[in-house]
This record gives sequence, structure tokens and C-alpha cells, in this order.
Amino acid sequence: MNPRQLSLYLVTDPILCGSRGVEETCRLALKAGVGALQLRDKNATTRELINMAVILRNLCRVHDALFIVNDRTDVAMAAGADGVHLGQDDMPVFMARNILGPEAVIGVSVRSPKEVVSAWREGADYLAANLVFPTETKTDLGEPLGTEAITELKKASPLPLIAIGGINPSNADIARKAGADGIAVVSAIMAAEDVQQAVARLLGT
Amino acid sequence: MNPRQLSLYLVTDPILCGSRGVEETCRLALKAGVGALQLRDKNATTRELINMAVILRNLCRVHDALFIVNDRTDVAMAAGADGVHLGQDDMPVFMARNILGPEAVIGVSVRSPKEVVSAWREGADYLAANLVFPTETKTDLGEPLGTEAITELKKASPLPLIAIGGINPSNADIARKAGADGIAVVSAIMAAEDVQQAVARLLGT
Repeated sequence: MNPRQLSLYLVTDPILCGSRGVEETCRLALKAGVGALQLRDKNATTRELINMAVILRNLCRVHDALFIVNDRTDVAMAAGADGVHLGQDDMPVFMARNILGPEAVIGVSVRSPKEVVSAWREGADYLAANLVFPTETKTDLGEPLGTEAITELKKASPLPLIAIGGINPSNADIARKAGADGIAVVSAIMAAEDVQQAVARLLGT
Repeated sequence: MNPRQLSLYLVTDPILCGSRGVEETCRLALKAGVGALQLRDKNATTRELINMAVILRNLCRVHDALFIVNDRTDVAMAAGADGVHLGQDDMPVFMARNILGPEAVIGVSVRSPKEVVSAWREGADYLAANLVFPTETKTDLGEPLGTEAITELKKASPLPLIAIGGINPSNADIARKAGADGIAVVSAIMAAEDVQQAVARLLGT
């Protein structure tokens, strides 16, 4: 993993992208400069996840982007993804590392310095402060952490830290200035009318 | 895998077992003679699945029973299960074989001779005719296959075939006489008041 790939990280959502679809939205986003893609779909069957993962893995290879699968180590292995992103309710990091080997990229969602240190010790490659600002995309994580937490979480380990949750073009720089090495978005790109423009604004270019 | 382990195969359900719980129900069932256990829970988090899988794997080892995880190759690997059971919407058999290696036990749900032959060619170890009789446990599989289908599916490959779906003490022998090498149940054991008695009746002892 090149840490620069984490500058702008897109998490997929099969509903928010509407009729444009996940594949086309990702294709446009990768072309516009997204450096990492995470396949996330909690309602798909395993077969559907694998089929979509293979498509997105191929797109990411063309664009030299990182391809990560949310939660499902099995789908990541079957599709030849670069790695997995694990929440605190997913597989423990050390088990995923044991299964995927030393080359795999393992990301972990964290909400406290304690979770940062655990993930780091267990072999995580990057962390995601989840969630930073209020959002409607994911609602099971309690109160937003806020920007001070980004600074605090960043200090707790040497790992790259991305910020996720309610990030949009108007607050992306706030998250970066608070210490985030990159930002992750769902709706800001998946639901954007103009994907290319959304990516450019999020990158500040 | 010893094919005799498939004579009576229990699929778990966290609701049907009520306050007795999955662990205790499985402990009683294994003690009474169940030869194979499949962990199935479509609503649990990955972490919950792994934790339960480790518990059930240990129980199965004590009783020399086969321990299989439904759908999730990642959970099977993390917990050191004997293998996975795959539906037609789950990971393709050849991918699971590639990930799990030659020693793993891979079961596949089938509903037609064509699916039997595909599963056999891709490296399945056993098959499950799903579903044989009407049942309220699983409702997404259409019409019951009936006993003639068991005979037909059994002829299509040399693999051991178990029958699942609506099996109870009164029709278990019908399924066996139609060609099933074993029977699989959910509610007939999970929801039984007396687990030991239910197992004895299903085994015909």
C-alpha cells in the first residue's frame, strides 16, 4: 500500500448511486483520482459480493488504486482484493492477518485511542476514525467523534489514519488539518450528480 | 470426513432453540448421537459467528463430530472448522476449495442433477438435497423437491447425499429409503423439548 492512495477513499453503496450503479460510479471516481475503493454491501449474497469484487478489483488495477473489501475476508480472498476493512464487530485483526498473510492490507475502524493501539498491535496497516461528522449513511455508531478526536486518534499510533463519516467538500480540509492522512466518503461521491466534480472538490484540486 | 458422520446432521438456529441456547442444544444433541453440526446464523455479526464457531468446534471435537460453517469460508478458517456448507448463492465450490485446501470438507445444497454434477466436478465432498419436505424454517427455496428427487439426485454423483427440509421422526426413514445417506434437521432438534429423545427418534434407535 502506498499511503498516498488513502488521500481519497471511496466506500461503495448500492442504493446511494442510484441507476448509475456501483460499477460505473466507481469507474468515474477512480478515473477522477480516488486512490482507494472499499466494497461494502451488507445485503448482498456472498456470490453477488464476489462478482462485484472481481469487477471492482479489475477497475482498481487499471487505475493503480487500492481495493479493499468490507468485513468479508472470504470475499477478499476469492476476488483477489488487496485486503479487508474490519469494524469492531468483524473478524479480529490478528485472525485476518493470519488468514490473509503479511502482504494483505488490513484497515480497522476505530473510535478511541485504546482501539487504535489494539489494532496497531494486532497488525493493522491503516485506521479509520469512524464517524467524524454527523451522517445519514450509517447510524449504528453513536455520536460523531468530532475533529479533536481525529487529532487524538492520530497521536496514538504511527499508522495512517483516514477520517470517515459526514465528510464533504466543505469539511474535508477541516478533517485533514485535524490530522487525518486521508478522507473516506460514501454519499459525497456515490450520490453525487457529477462524480468527477465531487472528486475534484474533495481532493481540493 | 467419515460418511457415517452424516447420518444425522444438525443445522443450528438461534431462535428455534429458545432460552436453552445454541451451545446447550448442540451439546445435548452431540451427546445423543448427532454426527455433524452446521453453524448457521444469517443475522449475527462476523465476530459473533466466530465466537460461536469456536465454541461449537470444541464441542464437536470432544464428540468426534464434523463441524461445518454455513456460507462463511472466513469464519470457518478463523475458527478452525472442518469445512463449509455452500448454497447456490454462496461462494462457488472451486473458490472455496482453492481457499480452504484439499483437506476441508465442502458441502453443497443442490436441487437438480445439473447442480449435483457441477458441485461434484468442482470438488464438493457431500451434497444436501434442499428442501425435501415442506418446512417453515427456510422459505426462499420454492416448492419441496419430494422423495423422488432424492433418488434422482443420488444417482447423479457418487457423493454422499443428505436430505434437508421438513425432516422429522415420522418421515426420516422415507428420506433414507429414497436414497439419502443421511438426514439434516433444524427445528426437529433445535426446537425439541427433549433433545435426546428427538435425536434417538431421528436415528431410529
